[in-house]
Amino acid sequence: MLPPTGTIPVAILGPTGYTGLELIEILARHPRLRTTYLASARGNAPRIDAEFPRLAGLLDHATAQCRPIDHDAIASACKLAFLCLPHEAAMQHAPALLARGVKVIDLSAAYRLKDPHTYQQHYGHPHTDLAGLAHAVYGLPELFRSHITSATLVANPGCYPTAAAIALHPLLKAGLIEPTGIIVNAASGASGAGRDAKPHLTLVEAGDNYSTYAIGTHRHQPEIIQTLDLNHSQPASHANATAASQVPPLLFVPHLLPVERGILETMYARPTSLDADTPRLMAALRHAYASEPLVVVRDDAPNLRDVQKTCRVHVNARLIAGTVVVVAAIDNLIKGASGQAVQNANIMLGLPELAGLV
Amino acid sequence: MLPPTGTIPVAILGPTGYTGLELIEILARHPRLRTTYLASARGNAPRIDAEFPRLAGLLDHATAQCRPIDHDAIASACKLAFLCLPHEAAMQHAPALLARGVKVIDLSAAYRLKDPHTYQQHYGHPHTDLAGLAHAVYGLPELFRSHITSATLVANPGCYPTAAAIALHPLLKAGLIEPTGIIVNAASGASGAGRDAKPHLTLVEAGDNYSTYAIGTHRHQPEIIQTLDLNHSQPASHANATAASQVPPLLFVPHLLPVERGILETMYARPTSLDADTPRLMAALRHAYASEPLVVVRDDAPNLRDVQKTCRVHVNARLIAGTVVVVAAIDNLIKGASGQAVQNANIMLGLPELAGLV
Amino acid sequence: MLPPTGTIPVAILGPTGYTGLELIEILARHPRLRTTYLASARGNAPRIDAEFPRLAGLLDHATAQCRPIDHDAIASACKLAFLCLPHEAAMQHAPALLARGVKVIDLSAAYRLKDPHTYQQHYGHPHTDLAGLAHAVYGLPELFRSHITSATLVANPGCYPTAAAIALHPLLKAGLIEPTGIIVNAASGASGAGRDAKPHLTLVEAGDNYSTYAIGTHRHQPEIIQTLDLNHSQPASHANATAASQVPPLLFVPHLLPVERGILETMYARPTSLDADTPRLMAALRHAYASEPLVVVRDDAPNLRDVQKTCRVHVNARLIAGTVVVVAAIDNLIKGASGQAVQNANIMLGLPELAGLV
Amino acid sequence: MLPPTGTIPVAILGPTGYTGLELIEILARHPRLRTTYLASARGNAPRIDAEFPRLAGLLDHATAQCRPIDHDAIASACKLAFLCLPHEAAMQHAPALLARGVKVIDLSAAYRLKDPHTYQQHYGHPHTDLAGLAHAVYGLPELFRSHITSATLVANPGCYPTAAAIALHPLLKAGLIEPTGIIVNAASGASGAGRDAKPHLTLVEAGDNYSTYAIGTHRHQPEIIQTLDLNHSQPASHANATAASQVPPLLFVPHLLPVERGILETMYARPTSLDADTPRLMAALRHAYASEPLVVVRDDAPNLRDVQKTCRVHVNARLIAGTVVVVAAIDNLIKGASGQAVQNANIMLGLPELAGLV
Repeated sequence: MLPPTGTIPVAILGPTGYTGLELIEILARHPRLRTTYLASARGNAPRIDAEFPRLAGLLDHATAQCRPIDHDAIASACKLAFLCLPHEAAMQHAPALLARGVKVIDLSAAYRLKDPHTYQQHYGHPHTDLAGLAHAVYGLPELFRSHITSATLVANPGCYPTAAAIALHPLLKAGLIEPTGIIVNAASGASGAGRDAKPHLTLVEAGDNYSTYAIGTHRHQPEIIQTLDLNHSQPASHANATAASQVPPLLFVPHLLPVERGILETMYARPTSLDADTPRLMAALRHAYASEPLVVVRDDAPNLRDVQKTCRVHVNARLIAGTVVVVAAIDNLIKGASGQAVQNANIMLGLPELAGLV
Repeated sequence: MLPPTGTIPVAILGPTGYTGLELIEILARHPRLRTTYLASARGNAPRIDAEFPRLAGLLDHATAQCRPIDHDAIASACKLAFLCLPHEAAMQHAPALLARGVKVIDLSAAYRLKDPHTYQQHYGHPHTDLAGLAHAVYGLPELFRSHITSATLVANPGCYPTAAAIALHPLLKAGLIEPTGIIVNAASGASGAGRDAKPHLTLVEAGDNYSTYAIGTHRHQPEIIQTLDLNHSQPASHANATAASQVPPLLFVPHLLPVERGILETMYARPTSLDADTPRLMAALRHAYASEPLVVVRDDAPNLRDVQKTCRVHVNARLIAGTVVVVAAIDNLIKGASGQAVQNANIMLGLPELAGLV
Repeated sequence: MLPPTGTIPVAILGPTGYTGLELIEILARHPRLRTTYLASARGNAPRIDAEFPRLAGLLDHATAQCRPIDHDAIASACKLAFLCLPHEAAMQHAPALLARGVKVIDLSAAYRLKDPHTYQQHYGHPHTDLAGLAHAVYGLPELFRSHITSATLVANPGCYPTAAAIALHPLLKAGLIEPTGIIVNAASGASGAGRDAKPHLTLVEAGDNYSTYAIGTHRHQPEIIQTLDLNHSQPASHANATAASQVPPLLFVPHLLPVERGILETMYARPTSLDADTPRLMAALRHAYASEPLVVVRDDAPNLRDVQKTCRVHVNARLIAGTVVVVAAIDNLIKGASGQAVQNANIMLGLPELAGLV
Repeated sequence: MLPPTGTIPVAILGPTGYTGLELIEILARHPRLRTTYLASARGNAPRIDAEFPRLAGLLDHATAQCRPIDHDAIASACKLAFLCLPHEAAMQHAPALLARGVKVIDLSAAYRLKDPHTYQQHYGHPHTDLAGLAHAVYGLPELFRSHITSATLVANPGCYPTAAAIALHPLLKAGLIEPTGIIVNAASGASGAGRDAKPHLTLVEAGDNYSTYAIGTHRHQPEIIQTLDLNHSQPASHANATAASQVPPLLFVPHLLPVERGILETMYARPTSLDADTPRLMAALRHAYASEPLVVVRDDAPNLRDVQKTCRVHVNARLIAGTVVVVAAIDNLIKGASGQAVQNANIMLGLPELAGLV
C-alpha cells in the first residue's frame, strides 16, 4: 500500500499545546513521517517557532507557519492527522477529516469512552459524533494492537489510564488480583494539566508542592475501569444493587507533582488467593510483555527518571502485607500522549512500530 | 517550679543535621528556652555557623562553637537536652543525662518502639537501655499530652507516624474505619532522609523525580501500628494464626518527593459500615481536635505548601467509592521533628505549649 | 509616646498577594504589632484563610475576614498601615490614611523614585501624589535609619535595590570602586513576579528553567542608581554630553530562577586603583556594618539557602582579574519586602528594630 | 573509505557517568554508529542497565555488560572510542587506542589546553601525553571544522567554553567588542558537576538554591581565553607588564542552578566604538552562523528550556547602557558534551554531521 520508502505527510491540529510540541519533536526524528501541516484554531495563527523557540530550525520555514483548520487543504496535503484539540473540537473535525480519507489519531478524550452517556456524565457535554465513537479504536497497542492495524480513527489513551491498564491487565487476566477494590494512587508532572496558566500551576504554587485532587472523581477513572473491563467483572451480588452501582470497582486518586513530566502510579489490589505471591505476579507480567519492546518488567520499583523522555513503561509488582502493590511509570507526554500517538500512527500506516520512538 | 520569666538553658546533642539546624532556628525565636550548649560527637567540633552559614548571628559567638559531648558539663549548664543523634548514640547518652537530672527529648527512634524485640527486628541492633525504654513517653501531645507533662525522657515521634496517627486515631476511636487493611501512601521531602550525601539524593537523581521505597518494610510501619494500637485490635480469627501474624494491619508505602520539606499522606481504609460517610468522618476529626491549636481539620484536602515551615497538621477525610480516604500534611522537620520536640519541651517544662512555635 | 507594652494594631491593604501573606506570618510572631484590619479592593472580599489555607488559625476568626478599604474604619482601628497594593492604588490611599493620622509603609514603587518624571518614564503613568512623594522616606534602615525614625510615609525599597544598595554603598563611599560601569547581574525567585498566573511563570515553563529579562530596562535600575547617588557622581567629561546621558552609570540585568524565593546578585565594578584589593574591600564592608545585626559580611560568597526565610543580607567582595566582584543574597519577600517593612514599622513606632524578625 | 551504509562500531570508556549515559542514548538513535563496547575501570564492571535502569532494552543484552578497558579488544571491535574518563586516565588510554588505529574523542579536559604548563597550573598534575597534546584538535565544529575532518584525536570542548566561544567569536572577529575586560557570568545545571554524590549537590542543599563558585578561578576560564585567542590580543601596554600578566582578559564567573541540565551565559563586553550597536552585533552573529544548523541567532534572549535535550546553541546580542550584552544557551550534556562528541565523530568519520543529533 504505502511505498517502502519515502516520507508520509501528516498534519497536527492544535500544535500549540504540550502534546503538539512533543509530537513535532518526535516526528522530526521519524524516518518516514513528516510534519507538513500545522493547523491552529487561533484567529491569528502563530509561527510555531515563535510559540516554542526550541523548535527553531526543526521545521522548514513555510511549515512552521500555522494555518487555519481547512479540511480540504489538510486532506490534499496529508495522509493522517493528529488531533491535539479540546474534546468538542475533536468531535467536530475528526468526521470531516475521515470523510476526506484522512486517518485520524485523536489525543483528546472525545473517543475514549465507548458509552456516550458515561462520556456526557464525566465531560459535561453530549457526544456529537456517535458514528465516529462507534467505530473508534482505543489506541493502546500493547492490549489492542490487532484492532489498531485497520483503524481509521484511533482514540489515543489518557496518560494515567495507559500506565494503569498496562500494569494491571495481566494480573487481572491471570486471575491473580480481585477485580474490585483496586486503588490507583497516581502522581503526575504538571505538563499533564496542559499549557494554560492557572493559579495553582504557577511555579510558586506548584513548585515545592505536592497535592491530591479530584479524589475519586477524575475523568480517567471510568476510562481505566472500561479498559480493564472491570464493570463487567463485578460480582453478581453487586450487579443488581442500586447502592453498589455507586461503588466503582476502582478508585483513582491523582496527585500533582512539582515536576514537568512523568507519571508514577502506586496501585493496591487484593490477591485472589495466597498463591498470588510476588513470583507469580511477576511471571504474569513477564509473560504478557515478553515480546513488547516498550514494556520493561523489572524486579524493583521504577521511578520517573527511568522513563522521562522515553516511550517506555516500567512496571513492578509484589505481594506485601497481604496486599498486591504494583508500581508503574511512564512519561505522560510520550507513552502517555504523543509517543503513543506516533506508535499508533506507525501501526495504522504499516510502518515499523517503533519508528521515531527509540 | 520554673520561674515565671527568665530563660531556661537547653542543649542540643548532634546539632549538625537538619533537625539540629531546625531546632536552633526555632529556639532562636523562643521566648524562654535558650540554646546554650551545642554538643557534637565529631572529633573536630565545628562552629555551627560555619556548618550552616544561615545561622550567622543567631547565637552568641561562644555558643556557636560546638563542644564535646560532656555529660557533666551539659548537666551543669542545661535543664533539658535535645538528642539529634543516631539511634545507638541516643541510647548511650540519654541515661547518662537523665542520671544527672537533665530532661531528655530524643529525636532518634531509640525510645519509640516499646517492645525491644520489635526494635531490634527493625533497627538491626539490640536495644541497650531497657530501663530508659520502659519509662520513655511517646511525645505526640495531641494523643498523649497527659503523659508528657511529667516525663523526663520523651521519644519524639517519627515524621511519617506523626501525620498518620493524628489523622487516623479519631476515626479508629470512633469506630468508623476498620483496624485492618489500612494503607498509608505517603510522600516526603528529601530532608527526611538526613544530611548525608547519598547517590540517590543528589539534585540530578532526586530532582524532577518521584519514587517509592521500602514498600511495606519501612521502620515507621511498626511505629504507626503501635501508636494506633492496631495489633491489639486484630480480629480473633487472625490473632492466633501464624500466617496472619505476618500480615500487618497496616501497610505503609513511602515515596520520595523532589522537594526539601513536607509530608503528605493519602490514606485508605475500609469503613466499618455504610454510616461512615463523609460528614461523620469529618465530625469525628473536628470533635477530636476542637481544642488542638496545631491541628486544622478542613473540608478540602491539604497540600505541602499549607504546612511547610509551620508546626501544624492539616487533615481531611471523606468516603468515596466505598473507601475512606484521609489526607494529612505536615512539615517533616517541624511538626515531624524539631517543632514537636519544642512542643514536648514546653509541656515538660510547664511553659505555654506553643511558645516559639507560631 | 507608645506604651512600653501592649499591642499596637496595624492594617494591611492588599493582603492577598505574596507580600501580604508574608506580612501576616511575620506579624503573627511579633510581640507588639497585631494585624487587626485586612482591607481588600476585591468586590467580594475573601477570608484570608480561604485565600491562603496555611493561615488557618493564625488570625482570630473575625480578623481573617477581609473588609473594604475604608479609610475612616482603618484609621479608627489602626496606628499604621502596610500598603501591598498596585502603584496607582497606593498613591490614592496613602494620602487619605496619612490625613487621618495613620502612618503608612508603602510596599509598592509609588514613593521610591524621588523625581516624578523618572517615575512616569519607568512606570508609564503620572505620579498623582507629589506632596506625599516630597516627604516620603526611602525605607532602607541600614543606610537611612535616622530619616525613618520620624517618617510618617515610608517607601519600602524594591527587592533587587535592597541587596544592591547594601552591598555597593560602602565600597562607593570608601572610594574603592568607580561610580560608573557597574554591572548588577541579579537572579530572583519567582515570587518576586507576584501572584498573578502568567504563562511564563507556570511550573512547566519556569521550573527547570533560567532566563534573563528586561536587560537594562528594569524599573529597579533607576532605583538602584538613585539610592547609590550614582547620577551625581558622573565624571565631568560625561555630564555635559548628550550621548553620555543615555549611558546610565549602572546596568541592571535580572534573571528568573526556578525557585520560590531568594535573590542573589553578582556585581561587577572597576576598582579605583590597585589598592582596592580584597582586604580593603572586605574592611570597608565590615566597617560599615559592624553594628548592623541584619547584615552578615562574610569571607566566602553567600547563596540563597543562607538567607531564605530570614531578614538578613549576606555580602562578600573580592578583587579578581582586575575586577571587583561583589555577591549579595537576601530573601526577596522578607528583607526584600515584608520583613524590611516590619523593620521600618518598628523604627517608626519606637519598638526594638528586630522585633518579630529573628 | 567508510561504506555508504552499514553500522560503525564505537566504544565508550567510562560509561557510568552522565556523559556516558547521554552518549548511549544519542547513539541509540544514530543511523550509523552503534555502541558495541562499554569499558569501565571499575573492578566489578556493572551492567549499564543496572546502573541506569532507563537504558533497559536500549542495548542488546551482551553489550549492556561493561567490560574491562582492554585496548586490544576495543581496537578489534571498534573504529572510534569516546573517552568519558578522568583527565589522567584519558591521557593514559588515548595514546594506546590511537596506536591501535582507533580514533579517539576525549570528553575530559586532558587535551583541551595546548600549553602543558597552563594545563598543569589549572589541573594540578603534569600532562603525561605531550605527543598526543601536540596533534589533538579542539573539537568545536562551528569554529574549527576543517581541522576535525582529518583528526584522529579530538579534544571535546568544555561545556561553558562551548557556549562562550560560539557566542563571542564572531563579535571579536568583527572587531565589535574589546578583547579585554570581558565578563562571562554563567549558570549551569547540576549535571555539569558529575555524578558523584557531594554534600553541596544533594537535593536539599542544591535544590531551591543558586550559588556562585570558583569566581575567576574555574578551569574553563583559560580554555575560553585560548579558544577566543584573547591572550594574543592583549594591548601592547599590558603585554610586557608583570602586573598586567596577572589580569586575564576575561573573567569567568560560574553559578550553580537548581536544575539538572542547561547552561545560560550572560556576557558583558565593551564595544570598540559607538558603531557597535545592536544591529551590527546581530549581523555579525547571523553572518557567522548563516550556514550552521546548530546555531540559532535570535532577536530575544534565549532560556534553558529553548535548548534542553537539544544539540543547539541559541544566542542573542545587544548594546545597552554602553555595554554589549550577549546571552547564549546550550544543553551542557549535549552541545556541551556528548552531542558535540557525536557531531565530532560524524565529521571524523565522513558521516552527515547531524546524524543522530536532531
